[in-house]
Amino acid sequence: MVYIGIDLGATNIAVGVVSEDGKILYQKEAPTKAERQWQPVVRDMAAISMSALSEAGYDLDDLKAVGMGVPGICVDGAIPFCTNLGWHDVPIERAFREYIDKPLFVDNDATVAGLAEAVSGVSASVSNSVFLTLGTGVGGGIILNKKPYSGSHGVGSELGHMTILADGEMCTCGKRGCLERYASATAMIRMGIEAMREHPQSELFTLTEGDPSRMTAKIVIDAAKAGDSAAREIFDIYIKYLSLGINTVISFIDPEMIVLGGGVSRAGAFLLDAVRNELPKYIFFRTMPYASVELARLGNEAGIIGAAMLGRD
Amino acid sequence: MVYIGIDLGATNIAVGVVSEDGKILYQKEAPTKAERQWQPVVRDMAAISMSALSEAGYDLDDLKAVGMGVPGICVDGAIPFCTNLGWHDVPIERAFREYIDKPLFVDNDATVAGLAEAVSGVSASVSNSVFLTLGTGVGGGIILNKKPYSGSHGVGSELGHMTILADGEMCTCGKRGCLERYASATAMIRMGIEAMREHPQSELFTLTEGDPSRMTAKIVIDAAKAGDSAAREIFDIYIKYLSLGINTVISFIDPEMIVLGGGVSRAGAFLLDAVRNELPKYIFFRTMPYASVELARLGNEAGIIGAAMLGRD
Repeated sequence: MVYIGIDLGATNIAVGVVSEDGKILYQKEAPTKAERQWQPVVRDMAAISMSALSEAGYDLDDLKAVGMGVPGICVDGAIPFCTNLGWHDVPIERAFREYIDKPLFVDNDATVAGLAEAVSGVSASVSNSVFLTLGTGVGGGIILNKKPYSGSHGVGSELGHMTILADGEMCTCGKRGCLERYASATAMIRMGIEAMREHPQSELFTLTEGDPSRMTAKIVIDAAKAGDSAAREIFDIYIKYLSLGINTVISFIDPEMIVLGGGVSRAGAFLLDAVRNELPKYIFFRTMPYASVELARLGNEAGIIGAAMLGRD
Repeated sequence: MVYIGIDLGATNIAVGVVSEDGKILYQKEAPTKAERQWQPVVRDMAAISMSALSEAGYDLDDLKAVGMGVPGICVDGAIPFCTNLGWHDVPIERAFREYIDKPLFVDNDATVAGLAEAVSGVSASVSNSVFLTLGTGVGGGIILNKKPYSGSHGVGSELGHMTILADGEMCTCGKRGCLERYASATAMIRMGIEAMREHPQSELFTLTEGDPSRMTAKIVIDAAKAGDSAAREIFDIYIKYLSLGINTVISFIDPEMIVLGGGVSRAGAFLLDAVRNELPKYIFFRTMPYASVELARLGNEAGIIGAAMLGRD
């Protein structure tokens, strides 16, 4: 038996045929065209799934379940919000099963990526882990006893929206000072643009040719790596807030491992070493064992693998 | 069969004989005399337990297990820290079982109080709840599937030490801006003393006769209730930070209910109504169902009942 894993993003729909042990056997993708209504997007997801299954040499009798990771939440078979896609109250389960009538499991994309790492990635050796995606926003995935945990009403694990600085930067969620405002790629870009204006002699200015719209998290990180002092200052602030957020995760649910994924995690050891160095300053029981911090290993495949694994367990 | 529940505090040792369904059948207490070494304190806990059992009409054959709530954490049968008692690496399980050789279960006092409410208090009707003690500090108890959750290394549910205001007030834990610095009785006293000095015409000054050492959370609350503007301002700030902390709990593990206990919760409906009014401002998925906020019901008995129930499950 095999599983279909669907990674629904604002840009692409990625679909994989996945084995029982979490390996991608076959994969294909197509543009989401998120400007469309949800109905043709759902139809496309089903069509790509069917052709992936067939091209991989399987048919519906071999398919045990379909899983889907979405940039939103899913409660009782429906997606109340999916902001990046402009979706609102989409009856995803009913709609998708009109095309492929197999058990469908839908969860948040960060939760799904966390599950993938827990099944066949860096956190495969532990039972309890927390995944943090450091991307446009900050997403969270909580895995307890190897199972994704989304709370009693499906609104949990929104770790990017913990308040870390009351009355701080305004967040897209409507309140101020969320972790996401300080630990996302977007935060690094915001600070990069501010610093570029203040320090026209810095690498931040040179690398963007003075154009704020060219600022990226990668530019800030590369400039910090190269020793640019303005960029290093931003990076240090970023690491401080990220470590404060990680410390709250530890004080809260004390997982065995915290996994960093998303665009900023591509900074690799430069990011990881900095976090591992900063975090102990904030730990409450600092002489006791606590969660290790690691980098995600599965990259873009995590979305497909984790989605497929939703249906396995 | 009955259970012994021991509530070990810095001031008193309270012991109860508790029935299978979480009712206190008999209760007695004695001063902790925390200035002593840990050995005589453990001996006293065992002696009080034995006499309570006997005075309640039971003997050791009727005793199924002993539970203990401590103002610290317990890992692998030992208490690494218990700051209020000056304890460090106390082998509690081995030491106590030299006196009473029954299964012993030890957990943090806030976790224990949360379990008590989940067994026979306000959260008895739900499976997942989070208990917040608003006292000298802010303690947290996480109950998932009716069981206390203390994390993978026993260092979780320290909800008072989530960072709510980076670079804010220095906390006893060594880092700045913990929730505890803004949502404890201690925080209310700190703000009360500051306001008393700035507003000598306020009720805060009158009720303390201008003596900062007389300031209590009750004075701030009573003055706020009476309409004193300086006290009302403190109360509003307190409610704001507490609500931000509660919102993080919801964004994180999305429980069915959040229970407020500890000294400040004696403000009753005045506190509860204010929190319920403030909280929706911060909720991420505000149109979706989320945790209700309630007051603890068991009061001082929670420590005994919850401790006893550690041994039941």
